[in-house]
Amino acid sequence: MNGLVSLVGAGPGDPELLTLKAVRRLAEADLVLYDALVSTDTLTFATRARRCFVGKRAGQPAIAQDAINERMIRAARSGQRVVRLKCGDPFVFGRGGEEALALASAGIRCEVVPGITTAVAAPLIAGIPVTHRGVASAFVVVSGHAASAFEPVLASLEPHSATIVVMMGLANRAEIARALVAAGWNRSTPAAIVCDASHADEHVWRGTLDGLRRGERDITRHAAGTIVVGEVVNVLAIAKSQNHQITSSVEALCLS
Amino acid sequence: MNGLVSLVGAGPGDPELLTLKAVRRLAEADLVLYDALVSTDTLTFATRARRCFVGKRAGQPAIAQDAINERMIRAARSGQRVVRLKCGDPFVFGRGGEEALALASAGIRCEVVPGITTAVAAPLIAGIPVTHRGVASAFVVVSGHAASAFEPVLASLEPHSATIVVMMGLANRAEIARALVAAGWNRSTPAAIVCDASHADEHVWRGTLDGLRRGERDITRHAAGTIVVGEVVNVLAIAKSQNHQITSSVEALCLS
Repeated sequence: MNGLVSLVGAGPGDPELLTLKAVRRLAEADLVLYDALVSTDTLTFATRARRCFVGKRAGQPAIAQDAINERMIRAARSGQRVVRLKCGDPFVFGRGGEEALALASAGIRCEVVPGITTAVAAPLIAGIPVTHRGVASAFVVVSGHAASAFEPVLASLEPHSATIVVMMGLANRAEIARALVAAGWNRSTPAAIVCDASHADEHVWRGTLDGLRRGERDITRHAAGTIVVGEVVNVLAIAKSQNHQITSSVEALCLS
Repeated sequence: MNGLVSLVGAGPGDPELLTLKAVRRLAEADLVLYDALVSTDTLTFATRARRCFVGKRAGQPAIAQDAINERMIRAARSGQRVVRLKCGDPFVFGRGGEEALALASAGIRCEVVPGITTAVAAPLIAGIPVTHRGVASAFVVVSGHAASAFEPVLASLEPHSATIVVMMGLANRAEIARALVAAGWNRSTPAAIVCDASHADEHVWRGTLDGLRRGERDITRHAAGTIVVGEVVNVLAIAKSQNHQITSSVEALCLS
C-alpha cells in the first residue's frame, strides 16, 4: 500500500511560481484533482496523471467536499499517488486542514506541500509589500466572503496598526471599507484591488478606502481579487512617479 | 546595460520549496547576495555566480543596508545579473521594499520574485493550518522584535477572532503571551513555537498561552522561531491522537 495524497499549493497562477516539490509531485502523480483558478499550464507538469477538475464553475453545481474526499481515499487505497492541487497555499482558506483530517480519519497517508499564498503574492505582484519598515510591521489576512468572518477583526483592530489583506471579498468590498471607516480608519487610506494576480487578465485598481466604499463596476468580471488596505499600497509607487522601474515576478507590472 | 537585480524569496529553508523562477534566476546569476538562514543547498543552484554572504552572524557586526544596496547597484551598472536572496518572502519582513526603492532611485532595473513565507509555512510544517473552517477565518502576522511593533495589534484585536503568527518574537515570547492574556485571551489557548522550520534542526514546541508566558529555556538556541497562537494549533492534532498519519512537506512531522 504505497498510496499517498499530497495536498499541494499551486501558488497564485503563474506556473513559474510552483515549487520544485510541487513539480515533482505532479510528475509522479497518477491522479490530479484540481480547483478552479489553477492554470492549465500548471497541469502540463502532470505528464502521466489523469487530471480531474473538482472546482466550482459559475452556474454549475460544485462537487461536494465529501465526494472529493471519497475520490482521494479510493485512489490512495488502490495504491495511487494523488495530488490535490489548490490555488495558493493549502492552509490559507484552502480547506487543506479539512481534507487532511478526512484522509487521516480514513487511515490514508497524507502530506501537505506549501504554495505561494495569494495573500502575499497578489500585493507583491502589484508592487505592494505587505510589511515595510516604518510603515507596517504587521498584516492581517481575512476572508471577505461574509461579514461574520471579517467584522470581528476589522472592527476591533487598532486603525492603521497593520496592513489589511482581504481574500474572497470582492463582492463585499463596499461593506469592508465601511467597516474600516466605522472603526476609525481614514477615508483617504490607500487601497488596492489585485484581480487574477499572475494570470493573463491580471488587473490592478488603486484608490482609497473611500473609493473602495463607492465601488468600481468592472472589477466584478474578475474571478478572484485580493483587497489591500494601508499606507504600503503607495510605498513603492513613489518609484513610479520618479519614472524608475520595478517589475513584479511576472513582469506584468512595468512601472517605468 | 542589461543589469538586473532580482529580489528573490528562498522560502523557509528546504531547497525543494524554491520556486522554478527562483531556481532560474539563481542559475542565470552573476552575483548572489544571500542572508543568514538561507541554506547552502539552495546556493548550489547558482552555478556560475559569485556568492556573497551579507547577513547577520552572532557576535559579528552586520553589513550595513547601504553597503548591500551599493553593491547591488554597482554590479547591476556593470551589466551583471544580481540575485538578492532572502529567507521566506522578500516583502514579509524582508526589507524587500526598501531595497526596491533604493534600486529604483538609482535607476536600476529590479524585479521581485515571491517566496514561500515562513509565516504560513512554519505552521504548516508543524501540521497547523493558519485558517480552518469553523475555527479561524483570519490570521494576523506580526513582528515580535519590539513591543512597539506588536502591542497595538495584539492589544486591540478581539480575542480569539484570528490566528496569531509572530515572527522574530522568540526573545519576547513571554511578553507577547502576557499582552494577549491582558487583552482577554484565555490562558489555555493553544500555542506553538516552530523553530528553524524545514531546516535539519527543526523543533516544534506545543503548549498554551500560559506555557508560552512561562517560557521554555532551550528554545533560544534556535536561530529563528515562529510563534502561533489559536485553536488551529490543535486542529490536526486530533488526527495524531487517533494514531493516523499526516506528514508535512519535509516529512519532518510524522504524526503516526
